[in-house]
Amino acid sequence: MAGPERKSRMITEAEKAIIAYHEVGHAIVMRSMPNADPVQKVSAIARGMALGITVQSPSEDRYLMRRSELLSKMAGAMGGRAAEEIIFGDITTGASQDIEYVSSIARRMVCEFGMSPLGNVLLKGDAEGNVTMSSEMASRIDREVSVLIDQAYETALRILREKQEKLMLISEHLIQVETIDGEELDRMLFAA
Amino acid sequence: MAGPERKSRMITEAEKAIIAYHEVGHAIVMRSMPNADPVQKVSAIARGMALGITVQSPSEDRYLMRRSELLSKMAGAMGGRAAEEIIFGDITTGASQDIEYVSSIARRMVCEFGMSPLGNVLLKGDAEGNVTMSSEMASRIDREVSVLIDQAYETALRILREKQEKLMLISEHLIQVETIDGEELDRMLFAA
Amino acid sequence: MAGPERKSRMITEAEKAIIAYHEVGHAIVMRSMPNADPVQKVSAIARGMALGITVQSPSEDRYLMRRSELLSKMAGAMGGRAAEEIIFGDITTGASQDIEYVSSIARRMVCEFGMSPLGNVLLKGDAEGNVTMSSEMASRIDREVSVLIDQAYETALRILREKQEKLMLISEHLIQVETIDGEELDRMLFAA
Amino acid sequence: MAGPERKSRMITEAEKAIIAYHEVGHAIVMRSMPNADPVQKVSAIARGMALGITVQSPSEDRYLMRRSELLSKMAGAMGGRAAEEIIFGDITTGASQDIEYVSSIARRMVCEFGMSPLGNVLLKGDAEGNVTMSSEMASRIDREVSVLIDQAYETALRILREKQEKLMLISEHLIQVETIDGEELDRMLFAA
Amino acid sequence: MAGPERKSRMITEAEKAIIAYHEVGHAIVMRSMPNADPVQKVSAIARGMALGITVQSPSEDRYLMRRSELLSKMAGAMGGRAAEEIIFGDITTGASQDIEYVSSIARRMVCEFGMSPLGNVLLKGDAEGNVTMSSEMASRIDREVSVLIDQAYETALRILREKQEKLMLISEHLIQVETIDGEELDRMLFAA
Amino acid sequence: MAGPERKSRMITEAEKAIIAYHEVGHAIVMRSMPNADPVQKVSAIARGMALGITVQSPSEDRYLMRRSELLSKMAGAMGGRAAEEIIFGDITTGASQDIEYVSSIARRMVCEFGMSPLGNVLLKGDAEGNVTMSSEMASRIDREVSVLIDQAYETALRILREKQEKLMLISEHLIQVETIDGEELDRMLFAA
Repeated sequence: MAGPERKSRMITEAEKAIIAYHEVGHAIVMRSMPNADPVQKVSAIARGMALGITVQSPSEDRYLMRRSELLSKMAGAMGGRAAEEIIFGDITTGASQDIEYVSSIARRMVCEFGMSPLGNVLLKGDAEGNVTMSSEMASRIDREVSVLIDQAYETALRILREKQEKLMLISEHLIQVETIDGEELDRMLFAA
Repeated sequence: MAGPERKSRMITEAEKAIIAYHEVGHAIVMRSMPNADPVQKVSAIARGMALGITVQSPSEDRYLMRRSELLSKMAGAMGGRAAEEIIFGDITTGASQDIEYVSSIARRMVCEFGMSPLGNVLLKGDAEGNVTMSSEMASRIDREVSVLIDQAYETALRILREKQEKLMLISEHLIQVETIDGEELDRMLFAA
Repeated sequence: MAGPERKSRMITEAEKAIIAYHEVGHAIVMRSMPNADPVQKVSAIARGMALGITVQSPSEDRYLMRRSELLSKMAGAMGGRAAEEIIFGDITTGASQDIEYVSSIARRMVCEFGMSPLGNVLLKGDAEGNVTMSSEMASRIDREVSVLIDQAYETALRILREKQEKLMLISEHLIQVETIDGEELDRMLFAA
Repeated sequence: MAGPERKSRMITEAEKAIIAYHEVGHAIVMRSMPNADPVQKVSAIARGMALGITVQSPSEDRYLMRRSELLSKMAGAMGGRAAEEIIFGDITTGASQDIEYVSSIARRMVCEFGMSPLGNVLLKGDAEGNVTMSSEMASRIDREVSVLIDQAYETALRILREKQEKLMLISEHLIQVETIDGEELDRMLFAA
Repeated sequence: MAGPERKSRMITEAEKAIIAYHEVGHAIVMRSMPNADPVQKVSAIARGMALGITVQSPSEDRYLMRRSELLSKMAGAMGGRAAEEIIFGDITTGASQDIEYVSSIARRMVCEFGMSPLGNVLLKGDAEGNVTMSSEMASRIDREVSVLIDQAYETALRILREKQEKLMLISEHLIQVETIDGEELDRMLFAA
Repeated sequence: MAGPERKSRMITEAEKAIIAYHEVGHAIVMRSMPNADPVQKVSAIARGMALGITVQSPSEDRYLMRRSELLSKMAGAMGGRAAEEIIFGDITTGASQDIEYVSSIARRMVCEFGMSPLGNVLLKGDAEGNVTMSSEMASRIDREVSVLIDQAYETALRILREKQEKLMLISEHLIQVETIDGEELDRMLFAA
């Protein structure tokens, strides 16, 4: 018995709404965090891999990044899922790239940048002699990574609950117009 | 001493009955879950890999899938085995593809989609630096995966016990006619 | 100092007896289990890999196999060793293929067919993302596998103790005639 | 939604200050430790891989290195991050090479040079027979490595707190002149 | 500073004595165990890999081996070291092949032949799906293997202590004549 | 900021002294142990890989080695570091080859020669079936290896403390003459 998953189909109205709230969720959290990156535009059209520019790119490693900036990026990345939970009560797979992104930052903070209670130790397999990381250390890493990610998600939820009216206003608008540029977003967000 | 396993043989009547109840089990659970996929047809002929279109196909990843939809798919996949247990009291190897399917969804929900108490952390070996997942985390993943699968099976059992008469009616009919299309299935299932 | 293990030698009378009882042990248990496969012939000549047609063959996977059938196969496979223990009080390496066979069935029942308390979860390395099985899960699998195998061995012992006279009668006959076909076996086994 | 991380940009004044304090932090700690290496010059221009000449280079293995020298190197390597924490209260990713360096020295001290409570045992995979290191030993190694690194960081913090005025004086000067040679550094550091 | 290990040298008288007692130790234990293999000859000349014909050779797998035979082989293999301990009080590296041999038998008894409390389960990596053996099972295997080996060593010690006079008599003779054939060995051993 | 590690430099007087005491430490311990190897000459010139002729060389495996000999080799190998600790109170990386050597002997004693409480079991990955060593066994091996090495180090310290005056006398002499042959060493060591 074959189910219909294989057929191509148009995005439904329901999905369009989810995407809109998801994207606005990201934007609002990003603009609300200290050391926020500016947002260029927000789009309601499903966009493949548009989100998820990760810190792995070598170009990024040339610049210093402060701990506060990394925490802001993580909270921003959790804004999409947080919006879905608050508005729809049912999370979607649309956050999988955000999950990958936030996990990557968290792991690098713990394992490479010494930005956790584990301290200034490199926790990464290296070419030199391939020292086995102990299972105990691997557990501690997993725990610190989860702490950072859970905190980012809580921050995103908190911000979007405080700004729930703005979230709804801007998302509904986005569903209509399909694209909102950065300046319009700021105007709508910071107006009374 | 050689046993007869190697000889090709025709499907026995007993096997035909098991297959029929198995397929109808799937169909009834799928149609009974919220956000159910429509069923095109149900066939009583052993069909190799016909069941088991998994969410791994890249085409599926373009669409958002809600947690409720994934749970429905899992319960539907457990409908075959649940029918066998209720009617025959002896489960068969015919559910191995369903087991593979439901395990795959469950693991992705836990490890990639953040749809478990473990939260929004990516739990997958990645090309980037191959961080060892701790044994503790692997255990927690296994536990959450089992929870999701056990719940899906319990759901399928519950639905088929409630609709046991329909299960028997439709299955017996299927044994006779060998194929039932989606509309006829709905009529038989939802009629008084 | 070199021992004589390397020299080719004829099978001794003692070994001939062990082989005969081993083979008859298999045959009696197989014929005594529900859903028993018919036995074509029993031979007392050492036969290399004649025993041990495993369920791994793809042809078998096209047919449904019920849990009761798999348990019968396992008990039958343990019939050889059980006979050795009951009659000779000293087990031999002649059971190594039986051990491989019964371990394979047991592991598949637990890891692929969901036929254990571990439930309907696939416990196998898969191509897709190579998820690490936790050490805890691996332990649980080992335990369930051992349970199934120990039960199969106990079943074989029980059956052969009940039918010990038949075991001796048929084995001694086999030592004389070297081959007994399936019908003769059934006559000797089920006669008063 | 794309963020601005990809664009090339000039180093901001804020980043210039962080780099200057970071470098002076290194220099001050190095000059304050016993068996200190002389410092040739300090530069405020971001310099890619300029820092982090590791002990892995074979040329270094020809010379004896005393435990006190290795501890001094480690504390010096932590001087950059210590300066950031004391002055800015926000650590950056700029210390990742220092983390790699100090981790490498610490691991070699524990695993190859017998310079820890674990004693004179080689704790490294060797070509000869690939003996598995126990998980217990791997944990003990991780712990001793962390102890060495934490002590190095504490030492750096202590030194820079004692010499905080010098740190600020020399760093501010460096921001202006962009390069300070070793002699001028010593004069500024050791003057009243 | 270079030590003399590299120079070729003649076997000293001391070493000749150790080898003689070692070989006679083997022979006496082997002839004293039930189901003993006959001994062809005993030689006092260091013989490279002459000892240690293992059960791994495929030819051996065609024959049945009883548990009692395997235990006898193991005790016999421990006869060399047992003789060294009893007579010289200082064991040598000359037993390394015996250790390899006895470990191999023990492991096969536990992992392939079901000849331990672990039962009739195959405990070996197999081509089929590479199921991970749990750490718990690996520990249990190691323990059962050690039990078998320790028992074999204790048996060898016991036998050689009972026959210590024969051990000394035959060994001293062997040092003189350099070779003793099987019949002469039996005569010397079993005479009053 | 670049440190001076890369520049080639002459061996300092301080390093010359450390090397001399290190070498004499080896020589004195080796000559003081039972079954000592004769020492050909002692040199104060840094000599690359001159020390560290390991027991791994196949030529050595043709000869029997007694446990007492192996313990003597280990204590001798620890003589260099012991001298550094007693005289200078600061150990150096110059002992890394000694550490590798002593670890190798200790591991072989435990894993191949059955010269530890773990008994006569082979604890090495073998080509045959790659049985996993349990984590528990790996821990026990690490512990026994550390015990052997710590004892060797304690022995070396004890011997050199007893002979501290000789150590200083001979080392100071070596610094002057740069080479002492074996006979002169023995004369200086064993004279009143």
